[in-house]
Amino acid sequence: MTGETRRTPGASGLEVCPQDLRLDKLRSAMGERSLEALLVSHPANCRYLSGFTGSPGTLLVTEGDAYLLTDFRYLEQAAIEAPVCRIERVGKRQGETLGRMARENGLERIAFEKDSLTFGGWERLKEALPEVELVPTRGIVESLRAAKEPAEIEKIEHAVRVAEQAFLAALEEIRPGLRKGVTEREAAWKIEQEMRRRGATRPSFDLIAASGPNSARPHARPSDRRFQAGDLVVFDLGAVVDGYCSDLTRTAVVGRPDPRQEEIHDLVLRAQAEAFKGLRAGISGGQADALARRVIADAGKAEAFGHGLGHGVGLEVHEEPRLAEDVEEPLPAGCVVSVEPGVYLGGWGGVRIEDLVVLTEGGCRILGSLDRDLMVLDY
Amino acid sequence: MTGETRRTPGASGLEVCPQDLRLDKLRSAMGERSLEALLVSHPANCRYLSGFTGSPGTLLVTEGDAYLLTDFRYLEQAAIEAPVCRIERVGKRQGETLGRMARENGLERIAFEKDSLTFGGWERLKEALPEVELVPTRGIVESLRAAKEPAEIEKIEHAVRVAEQAFLAALEEIRPGLRKGVTEREAAWKIEQEMRRRGATRPSFDLIAASGPNSARPHARPSDRRFQAGDLVVFDLGAVVDGYCSDLTRTAVVGRPDPRQEEIHDLVLRAQAEAFKGLRAGISGGQADALARRVIADAGKAEAFGHGLGHGVGLEVHEEPRLAEDVEEPLPAGCVVSVEPGVYLGGWGGVRIEDLVVLTEGGCRILGSLDRDLMVLDY
Repeated sequence: MTGETRRTPGASGLEVCPQDLRLDKLRSAMGERSLEALLVSHPANCRYLSGFTGSPGTLLVTEGDAYLLTDFRYLEQAAIEAPVCRIERVGKRQGETLGRMARENGLERIAFEKDSLTFGGWERLKEALPEVELVPTRGIVESLRAAKEPAEIEKIEHAVRVAEQAFLAALEEIRPGLRKGVTEREAAWKIEQEMRRRGATRPSFDLIAASGPNSARPHARPSDRRFQAGDLVVFDLGAVVDGYCSDLTRTAVVGRPDPRQEEIHDLVLRAQAEAFKGLRAGISGGQADALARRVIADAGKAEAFGHGLGHGVGLEVHEEPRLAEDVEEPLPAGCVVSVEPGVYLGGWGGVRIEDLVVLTEGGCRILGSLDRDLMVLDY
Repeated sequence: MTGETRRTPGASGLEVCPQDLRLDKLRSAMGERSLEALLVSHPANCRYLSGFTGSPGTLLVTEGDAYLLTDFRYLEQAAIEAPVCRIERVGKRQGETLGRMARENGLERIAFEKDSLTFGGWERLKEALPEVELVPTRGIVESLRAAKEPAEIEKIEHAVRVAEQAFLAALEEIRPGLRKGVTEREAAWKIEQEMRRRGATRPSFDLIAASGPNSARPHARPSDRRFQAGDLVVFDLGAVVDGYCSDLTRTAVVGRPDPRQEEIHDLVLRAQAEAFKGLRAGISGGQADALARRVIADAGKAEAFGHGLGHGVGLEVHEEPRLAEDVEEPLPAGCVVSVEPGVYLGGWGGVRIEDLVVLTEGGCRILGSLDRDLMVLDY
C-alpha cells in the first residue's frame, strides 16, 4: 500500500496543473448535489481529472483529496502522471481499500457513475461497504469535460491537422494505383499509416473507406472491394494525438461525378453550411440538429439522414454533448462537436461531410482547413 | 422494426454454422440454471453467439429464439453476419423492444450479464420491464468460450503466426538502424505495420517495446527512449486476425548480454518450461500459476514476479480462464492460455517470455514456433 504525498495545488504560485482546477470544479458540482465523495470509474473521466493515462484506474474524489486506485503494474506511471492524487495500490480487493478510505474519511455516502460501473461492480461495492450509502449519478464529469479548455482545443486542432494532412498524403499515394484497383482496406490503411507517421497514437476509431454501394452504410467497415470508376467513396477518419481525438469525413468520386452525385453532395454541403451558420452555444442539441435536418428534409430526403447531426469530441471520439433530435439541453460554450450531415440511399450510395467546430456564445469556429467540395479522384 | 426470418439450423443437413451449436450449448447451460432467457450484452459474447461483428448489439437468447438488437446503421451487416438470429432494430428505447419481446415470449424472468451491463442499464431495464424479474449472472457465455473449437484454435494459431513473422521481419528492419538509435515507439510501430501487412485487423493491445529501465514495468508504453547498448528490451505483441487474438513476448538484449541478464533470462525460461511440463486440463488456475512461480521463488525472486502466469486468449486478448494464485477452478480442456512468467527488477530491467498453449487432458501444445532463447540485437 503506497500512500504518495499530495502535491499542494499551485504551491509554487506559478504552476497550477489543469487537474487541480478540474478537481475544484468537480467539487463545486458535487457540492451543488450534496455529494461528499464521487467514485470515478469511467476511464476518460479518470484521465481528465487525474492525468493518469493507464487503463485500470479508479478515482475517489472527496472534499479534500483525490485517491487514484491502481494495481502494481501502474504505480510508477501513476505517480508520474497524477501528482494531484494520492496513489493507492489495489489488488483483487478494491472494495477493502475503499472501505478503509471511507472509514478514514468518515464517508457516509459515496456517489458512483452509473453508466460506467457494472451491476456486478456495484454489488461488490455494496458488499464491501455495507454501511455506506451508494448514490447513482450520471454525467457529472462528462458535463465538465464538454466545455473545453483552450489547451484542450489546441490539442484537438492538432489532431485535426494530423488527420487532414494524412488524408491528403494518402490520397496522393492512392491516385496512381487507382486504375489497377485500390481496395477499401488498402486505402484505410494508407490513411492510418500517414496519421501515425505524423504523431497519432492511434486512429480515434476504425477508419472508414466505403465505396460504391458500401457508402450507403454510415458505419461500413473497409472491405476488399476495389474502388471503381463512378463510385462514391466516403472517407471517415480521425487521429488520437496526445490523448485528444479528431473526426473528419469527406466524400469523393472516382472519375467524373455524375449529376446525381453532384446534386446530393451539394445538398449535404448546404445542410452543413446552414448548421455552421446557426450553431452557437446556448441552443439545444435538438435545435442544432434541426439546422441541417431541415435542409435535407426540404429536399425530400429526410428518411435518408438516419443519424444525429453530431457529437462532442475530446478525450473520446463520441462524448457529450450530442447534436440530435431528442436532446433538449443547451450546448455549452467551449464545446467541440462534429457537424456531419449525411444522405444515404440504399443501393446507390451515400455522402457525408464532417468537420469539428468549437461553439462560442456568438457562433462557431471550424477547426481545420480542408476543402469541402466533392473530391474527384481523377485517374 | 425489421423482423428477419430465422435460418433453420442445419436445414440443409450439411451446413451447421458454429453459432447454432454455441446457442444450443448456451441453452443447456441456461437450462441447468433454470434460466428461460439471457440478455447478452458483452460484445465478445454477443459476437461469439451470433456471428455479428458490429459494436452496438445486444442478444436476447430464449429457449426457441435468438434476437439480435442493433440500430439502423448495422441492420444490413447484422442480417448478413448473423443468419441464426432474428434482427430487431432498436433506437434509443431498447427497453420498449425488450418489453414487447418479453410479452410475446411470455418471459417472466430475464437473466443478464452483471459484469457487462452497467448499473444505469440495469435501472433502465427494470423500468422498462416492471413485471419481469431480472436475474444477475456472470461468466455463463465466458465458460463456453473458454473451451475452444478446433476452428477457433486454427484462427488463434494463424494470429500467432502473423505476430511471430511480423516480429522477426520488424527486427530485421530495426537492426541496421540500431547504432543510429531506434526508439521504443518506432520499434513498436514497425512491428504493427508488419502485422497489418500480414492481414492483422489491428494489434490485440497497445504493443510494448520497453527498453532499459522501462523493461521493469510490465505494462510500459512505448516512449521516445532510444535503445542503447546493454539494454534489455521486452517486446510484447499480438495481432487480431479474423477476430481472434494472439499474444507473444520475447526479451532481447542490445549488444552482448551480461551474465546477470543471461541468468535472469534463463530463470524465466526455466519457469516457463516447468509450466509447459506441468500444464494440463483439470488442474486449477492456481496450480498452473504455481508451476512457474515455484521456480522463480526458489531463486529468491518471488517478489519480482508480480502478476499472474497467464490468461485465456481468444476473441479477447484477456479472457477466461485466468492462471493466477487465487483461481481454484479447473482449467477446461481446449482452453488457450498465455504462459508468461516474468522477473522485474526496478532500476535494472525486466525479462518476460510468453507463448500461447492449448490444454488437453494429457498436457499442453504450444501454438507457435518462435525460438525462446535470449535474443541478441547485435549491431
